[in-house]
Parts: sequence; C-alpha cells; structure tokens
Amino acid sequence: MIGKMFRISIFGESHGKGVGVVIEGCPPGIEVNVRDIALELSKRRIDDPEISTQRREKDDFHILSGIFNGYTTGAPIVIFIENRDVDSSNYEEIKDTPRPSHADYTARIKYFGYNDYRGGGMFSGRITASIVAAGAIAKKVLAKYNIEVYAHTYSVGEISIPEDTSITRIKEETYKSPVRCADPESSKKMYELIKKVRREGDSIGGVVEAIALNVPPGLGEPPIDTLEGEISKAMFIIPGVKGIEFGRGFKLTRMKGSEANDPFVIKDEKILTEKNNSGGINGGISNGMPIILKVGFKPTPSIYKSLKTVNITMKKEEYIRLRGRFDPCIAIRAVPIVENMLAIVLTDHLMRWLSWIEYMS
Amino acid sequence: MIGKMFRISIFGESHGKGVGVVIEGCPPGIEVNVRDIALELSKRRIDDPEISTQRREKDDFHILSGIFNGYTTGAPIVIFIENRDVDSSNYEEIKDTPRPSHADYTARIKYFGYNDYRGGGMFSGRITASIVAAGAIAKKVLAKYNIEVYAHTYSVGEISIPEDTSITRIKEETYKSPVRCADPESSKKMYELIKKVRREGDSIGGVVEAIALNVPPGLGEPPIDTLEGEISKAMFIIPGVKGIEFGRGFKLTRMKGSEANDPFVIKDEKILTEKNNSGGINGGISNGMPIILKVGFKPTPSIYKSLKTVNITMKKEEYIRLRGRFDPCIAIRAVPIVENMLAIVLTDHLMRWLSWIEYMS
Amino acid sequence: MIGKMFRISIFGESHGKGVGVVIEGCPPGIEVNVRDIALELSKRRIDDPEISTQRREKDDFHILSGIFNGYTTGAPIVIFIENRDVDSSNYEEIKDTPRPSHADYTARIKYFGYNDYRGGGMFSGRITASIVAAGAIAKKVLAKYNIEVYAHTYSVGEISIPEDTSITRIKEETYKSPVRCADPESSKKMYELIKKVRREGDSIGGVVEAIALNVPPGLGEPPIDTLEGEISKAMFIIPGVKGIEFGRGFKLTRMKGSEANDPFVIKDEKILTEKNNSGGINGGISNGMPIILKVGFKPTPSIYKSLKTVNITMKKEEYIRLRGRFDPCIAIRAVPIVENMLAIVLTDHLMRWLSWIEYMS
Amino acid sequence: MIGKMFRISIFGESHGKGVGVVIEGCPPGIEVNVRDIALELSKRRIDDPEISTQRREKDDFHILSGIFNGYTTGAPIVIFIENRDVDSSNYEEIKDTPRPSHADYTARIKYFGYNDYRGGGMFSGRITASIVAAGAIAKKVLAKYNIEVYAHTYSVGEISIPEDTSITRIKEETYKSPVRCADPESSKKMYELIKKVRREGDSIGGVVEAIALNVPPGLGEPPIDTLEGEISKAMFIIPGVKGIEFGRGFKLTRMKGSEANDPFVIKDEKILTEKNNSGGINGGISNGMPIILKVGFKPTPSIYKSLKTVNITMKKEEYIRLRGRFDPCIAIRAVPIVENMLAIVLTDHLMRWLSWIEYMS
Repeated sequence: MIGKMFRISIFGESHGKGVGVVIEGCPPGIEVNVRDIALELSKRRIDDPEISTQRREKDDFHILSGIFNGYTTGAPIVIFIENRDVDSSNYEEIKDTPRPSHADYTARIKYFGYNDYRGGGMFSGRITASIVAAGAIAKKVLAKYNIEVYAHTYSVGEISIPEDTSITRIKEETYKSPVRCADPESSKKMYELIKKVRREGDSIGGVVEAIALNVPPGLGEPPIDTLEGEISKAMFIIPGVKGIEFGRGFKLTRMKGSEANDPFVIKDEKILTEKNNSGGINGGISNGMPIILKVGFKPTPSIYKSLKTVNITMKKEEYIRLRGRFDPCIAIRAVPIVENMLAIVLTDHLMRWLSWIEYMS
Repeated sequence: MIGKMFRISIFGESHGKGVGVVIEGCPPGIEVNVRDIALELSKRRIDDPEISTQRREKDDFHILSGIFNGYTTGAPIVIFIENRDVDSSNYEEIKDTPRPSHADYTARIKYFGYNDYRGGGMFSGRITASIVAAGAIAKKVLAKYNIEVYAHTYSVGEISIPEDTSITRIKEETYKSPVRCADPESSKKMYELIKKVRREGDSIGGVVEAIALNVPPGLGEPPIDTLEGEISKAMFIIPGVKGIEFGRGFKLTRMKGSEANDPFVIKDEKILTEKNNSGGINGGISNGMPIILKVGFKPTPSIYKSLKTVNITMKKEEYIRLRGRFDPCIAIRAVPIVENMLAIVLTDHLMRWLSWIEYMS
Repeated sequence: MIGKMFRISIFGESHGKGVGVVIEGCPPGIEVNVRDIALELSKRRIDDPEISTQRREKDDFHILSGIFNGYTTGAPIVIFIENRDVDSSNYEEIKDTPRPSHADYTARIKYFGYNDYRGGGMFSGRITASIVAAGAIAKKVLAKYNIEVYAHTYSVGEISIPEDTSITRIKEETYKSPVRCADPESSKKMYELIKKVRREGDSIGGVVEAIALNVPPGLGEPPIDTLEGEISKAMFIIPGVKGIEFGRGFKLTRMKGSEANDPFVIKDEKILTEKNNSGGINGGISNGMPIILKVGFKPTPSIYKSLKTVNITMKKEEYIRLRGRFDPCIAIRAVPIVENMLAIVLTDHLMRWLSWIEYMS
Repeated sequence: MIGKMFRISIFGESHGKGVGVVIEGCPPGIEVNVRDIALELSKRRIDDPEISTQRREKDDFHILSGIFNGYTTGAPIVIFIENRDVDSSNYEEIKDTPRPSHADYTARIKYFGYNDYRGGGMFSGRITASIVAAGAIAKKVLAKYNIEVYAHTYSVGEISIPEDTSITRIKEETYKSPVRCADPESSKKMYELIKKVRREGDSIGGVVEAIALNVPPGLGEPPIDTLEGEISKAMFIIPGVKGIEFGRGFKLTRMKGSEANDPFVIKDEKILTEKNNSGGINGGISNGMPIILKVGFKPTPSIYKSLKTVNITMKKEEYIRLRGRFDPCIAIRAVPIVENMLAIVLTDHLMRWLSWIEYMS
C-alpha cells in the first residue's frame, strides 16, 4: 500500500486472470465514468509495430466496488482489468534460465520458486494498467483544486527534448507523438532511434519527465514523508525505473549555490521563485511552483540477441534466445504511468494537507 | 516512521534541546556500547575550517530507553543528542525573509508560521545526527549476516572519483580524506574546489555513492515496497538530496539493452552477474550482488553572497545577506548519513525477509 | 489494511458486484485449493428458515491473483465473491429514514450521501465473506505450526453454554448445530429462543467465543501492537460487535488477584499455567496457553416491528417498517467470521515473530 | 505507533532513565504550557497509602522537541518523563521466577532474556505517564471543536456506580475521590473494599468508563479502521486491560433488538437518538451522541500472598513472595490513562475527518 489518506494497493499478474487496484480513502462524490478510465488506459497503447509490440488487448475493466450511480461512495474502490491476449507458451522453456536484468532470478529466490513466471508474472509492465486506472480517479480528485499532472518523454538514448519545450506543447502534443514526445523534431529522431534498435533486436533506455501544475504550497510531511521521498517510492513501483531526480536533479550536484538557488519574487501578489531549479519542492514540502521530476528507465532487458545466463537447475552457464513480443523502449510506454503515479501521490498529500487547512481555518 | 519490522522515527530541531531517534522493532541481544555510537557520530565531523564550518559541539548523547546491560532489549530504543553550541541570534532578523532554496518559506506555509525557524529548525542538517545514531545500531544487526555498508564522496562539482576505485580503497581511505573521498588525487582536487568556492562565499553540490556488500538475494517486497523505492524514500529524508539512482542509474537511460544487461555467471558455485549495472537489485529485490546507489546533493543554499528574496510581511522583494556558519559542501558531510540510512533500510528488509526464510525452512 | 507481514484489505458492497479481499505478504508455497475456500465459506450458511433468512446464493468466488498451480506465489492474493441473489427494491423507500442502530445515518454523514445504501452497502454482513475467504488461507499458513483456531456460540440472550464444555466438543459439534453451539442441550434452547424472537418479529444478541490452540509463546508486539489490541481491532471490523474480552475478561474486574492469577506449573517439561484466566496472553504477548476470547454481538437492528426514526430530508420524526430478509441473531452467523478473523491476526503475528526467531537462531 | 494523522509512539522502562512519548502529526499553533501537562500527569497520583502505594516521584518531564514559544510547531513532539524514585533491589532475586499473570514470562520468551526486568520494565504502569502527557496535548487539539473527554471508576470488584450518575457529577467529582469515583457513596464503598483487600495482601479488579462529549458524527474509517476497533487497540496498550465494550456492550448480547435499538429523534433541530445503547457509534462511525465505553481491568497480579510459579533456570515449581510497592487496584489509577488514550484516538480520527470536511466544502 502506498498513501495514508488516499491509498493504493495493486495486484495481478501478466498471464493470470488480470491485474487490478484497490483505492482506499478516496473521498465520496467524485464523478467517475467508464470513459474517464478507458481514456486513461488507452494512453498506454502505442499501436505502431515499428516501435512497440504490445499486446493487442482492449483493457476491458470492471469496477468491482466503491462506485455507485456514477460517483465514488467513500468505500474502497476496486478496478479489475482482465487479461485476454495471453500466450504463455514461450515461458516454460526459459523457466530455469533467468533472463539477465529481469526479475526472474530474484523472484525465484524471493518466492522460493512458487512465483508465476509466465510473462514476468507480477513484474510485468502489465501491472501498470492498474496504476493508470487509479490515477484516472486521482486526477478527478485533484481537479477540484485545479491541480494538473502531465508527463512526456524527455529523452530516448542520447536524444533529448529541447529544454525550452513549453508546457502548452507538452499538454497538447505528447500523446499525439508515437513516442510521447512533445517536440515534433525530437519525436521524429526518437522514433527513428527506437525503430533502429528494434531492428537490431536491441532496446534502448529513456527518461520520462513529469510536471504538476497548481500544486498548492504545503504538500509533504517531513521529516519522514518528504514529498520527494513519497513520489520516489511510488515511481520505483514502475518496472524498469533506475533513477529519479527533482528539479535540476543531478545537475545541481555540479552547480554552485549562487547558480542553483531559486530567488523569490512577487508576481501578481503571489510569492514565486524566479527559476525552478528545486522542482517545486523545498524541505520536502511543495512551494507552489510547478513540481518537476525526471524518472530514468533502463532499456528493456528482453532483447532478441543471444543472452548469457545460467541454468539454475543444472548449475551451468548457458545462452538463451527469447521469443515473444517485447517493447524496444519501455520509457515511452511508461509516460502515462509516471503521470498517473504522480497524480496518486499528490492526491494523498493533498488530502493530508486539507486536514490541517481545515483545522487551522 | 520508516520501516516495518525495524522502524525509525526522528525528532528534534537545530536550536532546540536536541535531536533524537526512536528505533522500534530492533531485535534483542544486540550488543551496543557507547563507543559504537560515538564513533559513528564522529564521522559527521570535519574539523578543517577551510571546507567545513560546522558547530564545535561534541554530540553528547543519551540512551533514554531500550538498552539494558549493554544489549538491546527488544523494547523501543531512544537516543537523544543534546544541542550545545547554539547561537540563535542571527535568525530573528531573517524571520520574514525566507532564504532562497531553503525550507524557510515552505515551513512557514506548512506550519502556519509556528515552526521553529532558528537554524533551520527541523530542516537543519543537525537532525541527521539521529540517523547516524540509529545506523550505528542497524549496522550491528546487519553484522550477524556479514552485511557491510559503505559510502564515500563520488563527486564534488565536476570532479569525480575514478570509476575503477576499488572497494578496499573505499573502506580504508574514505574517512581519512577531509572530503570523504577514497581516491587521494580526487580528494585533493575536491578539497581545493570546496576551499575555492568557500572563499568566494559560495557553495557547491556533490554526489555520495553508497555500497552494501554481502546482501543476500531476496530483500525487497514488491510490488509496493521495492528495495529501490524504500531506500529512495529514506534518502530524501536527508536535507539537500535532489536525486537518486541505482547501479548505472541515468546512464542506463542512454544505453542499449545489450550493453545494459547483466549476464549471469557462476563463480565458486554461486550465481552472480558479470557486471553490476543493475546495482544489485532486479524487480525491486536484491540479487546478491553489491547494492550500489548514488545520491545527489544540491549545493548548500546558504551562501555569503547577496540573496534575492521576498519580505513576506511587507510583501516586497528584498536582498539579504546571511551571517553564521555554513558548510560550503553538504555532500561531503552527508557521507556517513547516506551510509547509515542505507544500513537502516537494509536492516528493516533483512528482518522482513528472515520471517519468510524461517517459515519456508 | 490490518496486519504488517500478513495483511488484509476488504472491499465490496451488499448489492454491488460482490465483495472481496486482498491478502498481501502471504508466504509462497501454501497449497490452496478451491475446496478449502468453499468449505470455509459454507460455514457462513445456515439453511434453517426458522432461525436464519439469509440469501440463497452460492458464494461463487474467483481467485483473481496470487495463486499459481495451486500454490500461493508470494504475490498479492485477491479473492472476489460475486453477488447474485440481490433484491434492492426495498431500500429506495427507506433511503431518507435511517434504520435505528444501523450504519445508515452515520454512513450518510460520513460519505455525504454518496454511499451505496442498498442492503447496508459496505456495512452489510455480506462483506464478512471476504474475511472468511482470507481466513481459509491464513489457517493453512498456521497449520505448519499446528496452530488451530475455533469459534462457537457461547451464548444467545441469557442462554449460555456450560463452562465445562470441552474443546473436543467444540471442535466436533459446533458446525453440526444450526446455532453453532457445541453443547446439544444449550443448542436446543438457543434454537428455540431465536425461533421465538423471530416469530415475534424481533431479534436477539449473543456471544461468540474463539479459541486458538498451540499458539507458541512470543506473539504480540508491545508496547503498541499488543496481541489483544490487534485482535480487538480486527474483531470490530465484523458488523454488530460491541464488546470483546480475553480470558475471564470482565469477570476479572470482580475478582481478587489471588483468584485471578494464573500460577505457573510444569507439565511434561513445559511451562504452563494451572488455570487460564488470562486467556493465553500476558503483557500483550501470547504465553503458550490457549488463546481464549469472547466477542459480544448486539441483536440485529433490523426487526419487523415498527421503528421510530427521522426523515432526514423532511426533518421530522417518523415510524418505519422494514421489509426484506433479516437474521434474527447475527451472533450465530458470525461464528466462522470470528474464527477466521482470529486466524488472520495470528498469522500476521506469527510471521512477525518468525523474523526474530530466525535472527536469534 | 498508533494513529495516522495524529500519531503516538511510546518508549521507556520502569527502572531505566525514564519514559516518554513521540507525537507526530500534531497540528501547529496549539498552545501548550508546562502546567497543562503537569496537571494531567498529576491525575495519575493517588496519595492515600491505604489504597495506593505508588512511587513518590514528581513526574519531572522535559519537552525535547516540537514546542516553540509555547506552541506546537507541527514537528514531532517528544516529552520525556524522568525516573527518580527507583529501587531495583527487589527484582534481581525474582529474575528466574516469573510472577504469575505478569509479563515476566512472556517478556523473557519474546526478548530472549534480554528484556529489562526491573520493575516490570516496559510493561510497568509507569509507561502510562507518557500516554497522559500526549493526551494533554490531544485534549487541546480537541478543544477547538469543543470535544471533551472524561473517565471515571465505574466499578471496583462488585461495587458499581449507580447507572444514573450524571455527567456533571462525573466532570466535577471524579478526581476529588481517592478512587476516582464520581458517586460519593460508591466512592466510599470502593475505598473500603480496596483498603480491605490491601490489608489482606490481595488486590481487586475494576472497570473504568470513558465518555466523550460533542464528538461530531463522521469519525471512524470503516471497513478497517472502525472507531471502536481503533479505540480498543489503543486501550489494550494500557497494562491490565482484559476487556472493552461500547455503549451497553455485553448487556446488548442479552437484549432483543426492540430494546437495544436507539430510535432517532429530533431535538433542537438536531438528529439525536432517544437512548444511547450504541455508545455513540454505529457502523464504526461516531453518530453525534456521547461516545461511551467501558474498559475492564484485572486485579493487580502483584500481591503479598505466596505465589506459585516456576523457576525457569532450575525447571522446577516454586513459591515466591513479592516485596515492594504494589497498587491494590490498578483500575482506579488507570482513570486518567483511559481518559487521555481516548483523547488521543479521537484526535487522530478528527484530523482524518477534517480532510474530507475540507475537501467536500
């Protein structure tokens, strides 16, 4: 479970009955219709076979509880997304030869060999559908406070989006791009790169940037539940994430204080900062500026090249070749996941903050 | 509170009575003596005025509960570290003019002006002493399983340690270096850089790397409590952290799968990986290889240059000049904090894992 | 969520799609077959229309995740029990007139009128099916340590079971009795009493006793997570519970220390207590004796007599008459719920305890 | 830790340095002065040697963090109460012979013999001082909403207070009575009874009733965090508690629905219930009526009579005689503890509820 007031648990496996999410603590009266969730889920789909080889399933989902007459009731909400387009035949043969940099080996240890290894089981990207479904509701909760959450592909391999890409562009262009990149030129280059690595039977990493607008100052509960820490913990739930940074992130480690600092200014009677190197968070608490963070994804470990591994039963080294469908770049598919995960964490911290707002009023 | 089985809460302020830590769930029978904790606390001290201007206090601490006859009892342990060398005179005058990129402004909003603003209050680096004290005990818990935890300065500004710096060197040299850098040559360069920025009245960022050896495979509880996510949440408790990455981290985002993957090999009948790009974690679970992570620190926001800010009461822009003692590079002082925070999180996950080990045996 | 290592969340409504449970932290390798769960669920059924007017549904359930090839995988387990025999027609008319001593009024306030009021919604006894399903798995986890859990009807109204009813009898007779009472004579009297109150259009309260055998000493985590406190919190999840006591419970409040104390004795080289007034728990920790507790259920608030209430919309007092099917005595139907809830809490604390056992070994 | 928004952890031992409490999530701006806490702590003291043989210490306490300029800051608050009047000489000799019905034996098992056994260690009534200190602050938080919390001795042995004792009397008389009984006549009888059992070298049990007034409807978070369940878990933290019941509690188990139900009425435009058999809670949520509960305390297990126990090292049965100071009736000393524990839980649930109130407004 993540969250304290708005809480999320996820479940399910790639080749089992399906995947799902439990949302506890969602306030009542949030209008939720099937289209909202379907729309959000559809963002996970990239239909271009040159850069994505995802399942062709329709993400049929069922609201099992917590919604009545089109509104959240305040009771736990469960959304279940059925698995359909499942082919488990390729997995039996590699059961004993864990795929490098996958969770196959660690899962085998952790679960003493009882884990559902088909299609990565609980470690499959498939489970992220449940995060998106929950995020669809979180966004509705945030909407009352005009909080908006976006994500887009910041880089694929060495190709990055220009630093001056506007938020308007990000809002409007991201999901028009097959690689979820808001800048058309970079999008084209990323597309070509992914196509190329895919044809080589290889894969490539990437970075997803997320931005939240209109977040009021005050979210975050230091010393323990810093806003950065809470967002980070949530992001690492997404398969393939290996790094996260806020604002200028690791660039700040090479900067001087005089460059890095965000001077305060007054604009339209509001206290803002001139720059936003801090990514909207100071001392673990939102400062009213846009929250900006980058999530780094490793390249898909499943590639079509020969892979060196170990046969666990035979205790000897071996080479395997994977069959099946693999995304050459998981980063681009993770864009809506990062976006919705951020919405989930912000909703929790908004709900915590409202308690104090009400008490102090 | 962080942790489930081995749990930590911290408290205290920079200019109040002191800072402290509550440890719950620590197994009984861990031998703890005052020297262990004192030794760990002493690692926080850098006595060279050219690069550090820390308080001159001795970190007098009191064990308030949970230790009896030199051993942990299994009851909650509280360690309290008194504040001594406190001068609060400089803070009153800047009460209304929040220091840029500090927590002054967000704290004021979050706590409706009631926060203890003296010396940064609960946001001061001072509170990290409590983490170190808890880590001293965590390390003792880990010792039974031969798990060792290290940290060192990976970079200051643009100066990085050579990639091939050996673990032996890190073990032996780190705390001999005034900048906690295991490579003598880099250490010298970092030292000069910090000295220079300090003389300019400025500050500089840096990166701390942490390494855990002999971590058994199986630690981490996905889908929610991934080992990376749990470590990340804990690291962001440390003031000044703006990014974290595991293994090759963000470098992986620019790599192909064929380079990034960690092929399995057998060495001395053990299953290992040839490289360790994953930083010892796959699918959120430790894989038996060293756990490696980097934590990015921003430059100290407190510098001696004129700072643009806003007078909150008067609602107008203003320039301030800080007086007092500031570290020009918090990264180097954070080395023992990162090290001990990693020990704390690993202890919690070790204790969780042992439950299943025992059950399955 | 209850639990730390073995964790349970429940969801669902009486007249929605169904009810269900999420189990997190269940160790892998527990053999679970559909019959185990079906058998446990069948204990909720009392087919005698003279004393029970329950739904006629078959409790069709689906394992949505976490079980693979007949064994738990270590991943979150979700069991969903569909609603079938649902008639919501009677509820619209009483929407504005909350039933006395029901959750109708408080739910309306708490959920700002958005709650699913049909059939009690999330407050219906229906949701307890999910607890039973989870308990079926918890019992399997406990079985490895020979821990057994039982419950039976201790009293209905003024009729109590004889104090000397043996545990053998409780094991063998409880579910043969339509009122879940292990003593045939008391069973008959309880049956007649329930029949009588039902014919009067009334209902009656009762007490369920639960017993756990072979619980090792050491379960419970004081000072906060006492075993009694953890069991209590869980029991109050069951609708209709208004009291709980351990061992001799409230009778101890009228006893002297010299009577109440449980002297230690040695039997077969084991340290036991002569009596078990403490109900197997001292200082919040299990002492190795049977854990014994009683859970008090109020009479079903839904009765066929005229009920005085308030029309919330019209803001005036009103009398209502309920239609529909109501159990005249919820206590007897709660026997398997109490039993399985106890199994769930003990499993969590067993798993916590095993961590220390392994560490100290 | 108990609580989610307003959170409490306690620590300390009877004969160690002291006992204390950590309060996290307390809203800022609550005026707290030393006298408030001292006054609350003084309620624990009963100076009559005929019925109480408590320590003569003054409960010197230190606020270690979280209060600044007389107000809560929003940061974690720690209050530490020093031990003074400590005589540990009597405990060494009984180290191997656990006192019946005490935590000696279970603590020895749980903590593998490392527990601080002096004076009961962490199981001593001494630790309840920390609850009272936290409650003093909780009451201040509640005061803004006019929520008041009271407790009084309901019964000692067979002597009960008259059912019609008014709340005014409870407010005014309780702490004037040496046995914390609001009815003068019952108080006298209880006093005599306790005196008598004390002279016999024995002890006696009792029941404490707690009442909360002006609790708004809506507190409690079912299905898991029912208000009754949360209060219960908290109450079992208090040493000696063996049962809890809400409203008419176990009496409801002997009642019919037609008697037990609380019909709704309108008074002064407010929706109330005619009776309050439910104790102010339905469906796990407060209904706006006074919250009423009873907590059952066993007789002090420490008595001056010969006690049968087992020498654990020698593995043989033995009789022991305790020396030292023991309260003949812990129930009467627990009155302020129950009162403050209730305040703590209600504060947490108030703060949770305010989040939704604010969101829905």
